[in-house]
Amino acid sequence: MSDIWLNKVNWSEEGLVPAIAQDAVTGRVLMVAWMDREALKLTWQTNEAVYWSRSRKKLWHKGEESGHYQKIKEILLDCDGDVILLKIEQLGGIACHTGRESCFYSRLESGCWKEVDPVLKSPGEIYKKEPGGK
Amino acid sequence: MSDIWLNKVNWSEEGLVPAIAQDAVTGRVLMVAWMDREALKLTWQTNEAVYWSRSRKKLWHKGEESGHYQKIKEILLDCDGDVILLKIEQLGGIACHTGRESCFYSRLESGCWKEVDPVLKSPGEIYKKEPGGK
Repeated sequence: MSDIWLNKVNWSEEGLVPAIAQDAVTGRVLMVAWMDREALKLTWQTNEAVYWSRSRKKLWHKGEESGHYQKIKEILLDCDGDVILLKIEQLGGIACHTGRESCFYSRLESGCWKEVDPVLKSPGEIYKKEPGGK
Repeated sequence: MSDIWLNKVNWSEEGLVPAIAQDAVTGRVLMVAWMDREALKLTWQTNEAVYWSRSRKKLWHKGEESGHYQKIKEILLDCDGDVILLKIEQLGGIACHTGRESCFYSRLESGCWKEVDPVLKSPGEIYKKEPGGK
């Protein structure tokens, strides 16, 4: 099938676009990550969120280590073509690497950032390696 | 009051951070724009969204031309400190310069972007100049 739809995205100079992941049912904004052309294409083809990790400089199939995959319900593009919005189902109910539901757990209150969300599972438990695993 | 909370934001090399505006009641993601330090500070102080316009290279008090101001209900920061989430009340019910409720009106369907939202008010009507106005 034609990939012409990928050309409608205004990729940055680095060939990236930010993608917001939003819970399709509750509407909660869970995280923001980056996609390159291949990541967006794979996200669409597989119906699971695939991002581009800027720190590791490689494709990142969200959940590959944690099991917290994101099932795609809807893919939206904004009017300037430079932001993607994914409506998703978050497996495990945890999107953040800190073990919280959402990465947006710091709220500005009286000039201070307050952490307002609980850690649902410790990162050590989420990312523990299987004995003999990689 | 101390501005130390502004230092918790991981500003880009250009001194900017992306800010997502989300309807505080419906949860709909309305738009994404950029903020510099001054814009975020003003947003917090005035309880109305102020962005940094990268095209016009100046502060942009959202609604200054359209009347579509955004009243701030909550300001959140993500775990990496590099994305702001604003929960807002969108005056006029229109966040997008195209006259739609949200900038995210293009949905990927069968490999094509489909416009799935109506224009509520034409841009010509939103941005018309008063006779003798500036």
